[in-house]
Amino acid sequence: MTKQQLFEQITKKNSYLCVGLDTDIKKIPSHLLKEKDPIFEFNRQIIDATAEYAVAYKPNIAFYEALGAKGWESLQRTIEYIPQECFTIADAKRGDIGNTSGLYARTFFDKSSSGLDFDSVTVAPYMGSDSVMPFLEFEGKWVILLALTSNAGGDDFQQLLIGHKHLFEQVILTSQKWADSERMMYVVGATKADKLQKIREVAPEHFLLVPGVGAQGGSLEEVSKYGMNKQCGLLVNSSRAIIYASSGEDFAQVAAKEAQTIQQEMEKYLQMYL
Amino acid sequence: MTKQQLFEQITKKNSYLCVGLDTDIKKIPSHLLKEKDPIFEFNRQIIDATAEYAVAYKPNIAFYEALGAKGWESLQRTIEYIPQECFTIADAKRGDIGNTSGLYARTFFDKSSSGLDFDSVTVAPYMGSDSVMPFLEFEGKWVILLALTSNAGGDDFQQLLIGHKHLFEQVILTSQKWADSERMMYVVGATKADKLQKIREVAPEHFLLVPGVGAQGGSLEEVSKYGMNKQCGLLVNSSRAIIYASSGEDFAQVAAKEAQTIQQEMEKYLQMYL
Repeated sequence: MTKQQLFEQITKKNSYLCVGLDTDIKKIPSHLLKEKDPIFEFNRQIIDATAEYAVAYKPNIAFYEALGAKGWESLQRTIEYIPQECFTIADAKRGDIGNTSGLYARTFFDKSSSGLDFDSVTVAPYMGSDSVMPFLEFEGKWVILLALTSNAGGDDFQQLLIGHKHLFEQVILTSQKWADSERMMYVVGATKADKLQKIREVAPEHFLLVPGVGAQGGSLEEVSKYGMNKQCGLLVNSSRAIIYASSGEDFAQVAAKEAQTIQQEMEKYLQMYL
Repeated sequence: MTKQQLFEQITKKNSYLCVGLDTDIKKIPSHLLKEKDPIFEFNRQIIDATAEYAVAYKPNIAFYEALGAKGWESLQRTIEYIPQECFTIADAKRGDIGNTSGLYARTFFDKSSSGLDFDSVTVAPYMGSDSVMPFLEFEGKWVILLALTSNAGGDDFQQLLIGHKHLFEQVILTSQKWADSERMMYVVGATKADKLQKIREVAPEHFLLVPGVGAQGGSLEEVSKYGMNKQCGLLVNSSRAIIYASSGEDFAQVAAKEAQTIQQEMEKYLQMYL
């Protein structure tokens, strides 16, 4: 999917919501456990209920991997089920030396190898350029690079000062030599909305994936006010607050309602800040 | 496995060799492709041939993931097959916010969840403490944290100066608050043997996993001279130089010979530097 196509979908749905499919077998409604593939069944109903309000879906790969081979089968069914017009993110936080990152790229982008065909993958920056480039060799696919994360430990290294710049700013600056805003996005934790202005100074054109709204506590208004650019430039993720809004048989309807509430708030901010 | 048990195995085998099971379906001898699970069959023969000379095995998870669910089944068979006395490393370079790293820990350490039961996992440091701690909640399991990697891109961020220290030194210093040398090791690229002295200043007791000897070009003598401590403190990995030493039907015998050559060199260095 191109940047322009993503923006068109945002304006069509009046939404920049990404639904995080962090589907935990221990948390899904118990009536689904009798299904042959409860994880996929849960995702299927969540996708049906929210696709009207969401422009992207982001399965966090850890939740599928933790179930071994069976989990990968659920992931494959899920990614095949997501409507074509939605942007898909493999939240995998991978990164290894060149030839190995090439294999991770095959994992998420080469359906003939792994059965998976995502639009994008999240990548950790620590190993530098040649750990990122192999993902960009797949035409039309995106890298979403970790810049500033919303967890407490994010401060351990990301906020360290390199001269007058924080490490997360240096990551954004250096990585712009590897790809432009048509192929790269950045992960920016929403609990640091005050940092968004700084990030927009060094990356005015890029899409930012903001994972910290909802259970992780970021403010959607602040993120939208300081993070939005002329092509929206934001994908704001919500996982638990939507998918686990109800643990009963009505989980999908309640998820739809939560997603709609967020979409309506986003529609307002698109009018205010776009 | 405890640090003491690992050291005992090193002295028993006179070896600190780790064999990297970077098993690529496109590179294994063609006569294996008729097997039901060619990846496992290749690994089984490599393990049989090298277990006498190796103290550890390190499957790089990318190679298995790239094959989807089928690859995870090959990985599971492989890890079950590795002899109990050998230390096992899931070279996965994972790391995510706390609850998600907890799921990655389940993936590699909780057999009842994923079918896998490794002794250790490699973890990327960028997301800080709470991305690492969940792995340490599994008793007796190890975290092997990326510090200094051997790829060209490693210089992009790891060598940046934070005050008077490089980022990789800061990673080692900060992470020592999370676990001591009984539960944590560091990945240190062998092509930077001159950096080993610096690392031994800040981490004298820790085991170092050195991935860059062989195809990646590090010198085993230099690594041993500057990296060895009183409990050896080194696991030196070789992947392609052993497992792909021959592409014929004799691949396992040739791999054994390569492993033995490295082991004999290591025996010499253990006498010189231990």
